[in-house]
Amino acid sequence: MTGLKKAFIIATGTELLLGSTIDTNSDFIARRLMEAGVKVIGRIIVGDQKEEIFAAFALGAQLADIIISSGGLGPTKDDLTKETACEFMQVKPEVVEEEVTRIRDFFARRHKPMPENNIKQAMFPREAIILANNSGTAPGMYLYKDQKTIIVLPGPPREMKKMFLEEAEPLLKEKLNLTGKKAVSRVIKVFGPGESQVEEMIKDVMDDPQGCSFALLASDGEIHVRITAEGEDQQASQRLLDGLTEKIKADMGAYIYGYDEDALVSVVAGLLRDKGLTLAVAESCTGGYLSKTITDLPGSSAYFWGGAITYSNEAKNKLIGVNDQTIRDFGAVSEETAREMAAGIKKTAGSDIAIAITGIAGPEGGTDTKPVGLVYIALFSDEKQKVYKLHFNSHREGNRILAVKSALDIVRRYLCEK
Amino acid sequence: MTGLKKAFIIATGTELLLGSTIDTNSDFIARRLMEAGVKVIGRIIVGDQKEEIFAAFALGAQLADIIISSGGLGPTKDDLTKETACEFMQVKPEVVEEEVTRIRDFFARRHKPMPENNIKQAMFPREAIILANNSGTAPGMYLYKDQKTIIVLPGPPREMKKMFLEEAEPLLKEKLNLTGKKAVSRVIKVFGPGESQVEEMIKDVMDDPQGCSFALLASDGEIHVRITAEGEDQQASQRLLDGLTEKIKADMGAYIYGYDEDALVSVVAGLLRDKGLTLAVAESCTGGYLSKTITDLPGSSAYFWGGAITYSNEAKNKLIGVNDQTIRDFGAVSEETAREMAAGIKKTAGSDIAIAITGIAGPEGGTDTKPVGLVYIALFSDEKQKVYKLHFNSHREGNRILAVKSALDIVRRYLCEK
Repeated sequence: MTGLKKAFIIATGTELLLGSTIDTNSDFIARRLMEAGVKVIGRIIVGDQKEEIFAAFALGAQLADIIISSGGLGPTKDDLTKETACEFMQVKPEVVEEEVTRIRDFFARRHKPMPENNIKQAMFPREAIILANNSGTAPGMYLYKDQKTIIVLPGPPREMKKMFLEEAEPLLKEKLNLTGKKAVSRVIKVFGPGESQVEEMIKDVMDDPQGCSFALLASDGEIHVRITAEGEDQQASQRLLDGLTEKIKADMGAYIYGYDEDALVSVVAGLLRDKGLTLAVAESCTGGYLSKTITDLPGSSAYFWGGAITYSNEAKNKLIGVNDQTIRDFGAVSEETAREMAAGIKKTAGSDIAIAITGIAGPEGGTDTKPVGLVYIALFSDEKQKVYKLHFNSHREGNRILAVKSALDIVRRYLCEK
Repeated sequence: MTGLKKAFIIATGTELLLGSTIDTNSDFIARRLMEAGVKVIGRIIVGDQKEEIFAAFALGAQLADIIISSGGLGPTKDDLTKETACEFMQVKPEVVEEEVTRIRDFFARRHKPMPENNIKQAMFPREAIILANNSGTAPGMYLYKDQKTIIVLPGPPREMKKMFLEEAEPLLKEKLNLTGKKAVSRVIKVFGPGESQVEEMIKDVMDDPQGCSFALLASDGEIHVRITAEGEDQQASQRLLDGLTEKIKADMGAYIYGYDEDALVSVVAGLLRDKGLTLAVAESCTGGYLSKTITDLPGSSAYFWGGAITYSNEAKNKLIGVNDQTIRDFGAVSEETAREMAAGIKKTAGSDIAIAITGIAGPEGGTDTKPVGLVYIALFSDEKQKVYKLHFNSHREGNRILAVKSALDIVRRYLCEK
């Protein structure tokens, strides 16, 4: 049993539905709730229609303990969130005189009379706690009834955030006795095996999860294993998480390249930097993608010499001295050409390591013996010269990114073993 | 009465709840539906729990005619969307032998056996139409029952989009007899001036919009002007749109590089191809980004020779013969070095056009006289040799992408004038 309170987040506003305005409010609320130890189980965007807003609150009450909405507190007819929440909770809004005065003052300070339809912003049920809005006219609402907590916040992100942090969050913590987050999580990042292979490799851990939960996510040829541990308190969760991480490390070994925010290229960069080694590349089918990825990182000039984009056969010959005869005999996509490309750029650059990539990215250019997705990657250093033959089964963009990541992983594994 | 069909969009995945992974699928689906004349009335994100996925489908069926989900079609235990949709619709998934064969083939092409848990991706109810997935193992599902249309799509955006466009959308249009909408829109794409400059240049059109609406969007140094026209019918809208487009063309001239789905690089590719010219590059601060962008396009070998990633000074000298003395006298980031880089790669490649880029991408490496964001771009052809000095005012990634786009735009303008 987790015992965590569950929350459901509602954003209202027709402009959010098509993504032309992005719903940043729900991200913010979700993160704050997670930090406070509340489990967010769903979030919904609905337009300004009463039926849909009502249905959203009903779903929230069905699935969660806490329902938080943002948007729809303005003075106009299509601002219906508070009224609809009250109707759903079967409480009746009434004019609150102090709030009328406050809104009148707000307009008075701007030398304007209060439009009559702003009165509705001053209406609240007796059961509610009114959440002050110090940067706009619309107050929010906190309502606890029938074991459900309903929090209604304004839509403008600046008003919403301020009200959430100063008014709603302290109330939530006090009333629901939230003690902060007990759960901790970690993402283990894997390159090489596919999603179902990873699942089989860590079967022992998934079959005995010790109360932790797992999510596997495939992303551009990588598999990310997210473990969330939830113990008695944060310390216990951390111990649980560390224990499971060790087991997964034992299962997966060198397939794991990093954790959480690590990227494959930054892991390779760290290894090159630590060992004081330099890298040069020769790229055919990836056409600069590997170099671009390496130089995305600031400071890469410390270990990256540069390279040759040998997209044409002539470039292979003129830039790094690949023999025309080799290309004629074996083809541009061949072990032999990959080998000469790596040897050629290593000689020119005088780098510690050279990587060469030649392959058929697609969609055209494949044959029966050399299909789209066939890629040769050569790693040359003073003590090791090896060509890897790989088959990818993706579209052009996928094959190219897989070739880049495979090349980086080949360097990583070489540096880890070295 | 509108008579418009209503749609509800579901995204599943715990990683989407906190916004650490952004749900771009629902934006895409919402826009396509709108284009097809369907009204999107809500969208929800739920985690990988069955109860919540079930509740999401139930809410969708309560509010809408069409329910479209993405995510949760993987082979693992936490992939539950299809199963839950079937349970909600009271249909029973069974193993479909052709799909098993297809998935086995998918793994066979990768020289791997199919893990047994992939079988569940081949299970569908009799009532469903199976939506082919040509870029992954998980097929989608189209189900019409009890006057509700349920469409279940995979989570990876590329697979989802392809399946939506090629499989789901045509079925939707056919089965639900969608006739599309009256409004038409066009995006005019501009490189060079900033957002407020564009606004001033097209002031005459914006001051007399003839019932059209405008949106300006800045995106990686480009400005996209979206015009939406809504007349009596689609034909009238189109006439309105074409009229305004002509006026904007008169205002902006060569700053406009394309429309709608055009990308700067594909416009350049088209020009090179049409004129039968070849291009070679030498990249310093962009470190392969330009080459990568050019070779993102299939068929680029027809006009792209290759190039040199001269990230270090030594690479500038050894790969394309830049004089060490030039670098010592003027610096690696200088008009003189850019000139020698372009001349060097043009000579080696024998290409019609050569482009060289050298600059300071940041965050380190800037000085008072050569600040971060200073970039020289040289274009060399037989009849023109010119070096452009540019200043960008962005972060590393921004400066690099602006350098790449500026280089492409310099080639575009050269080819247009030629």
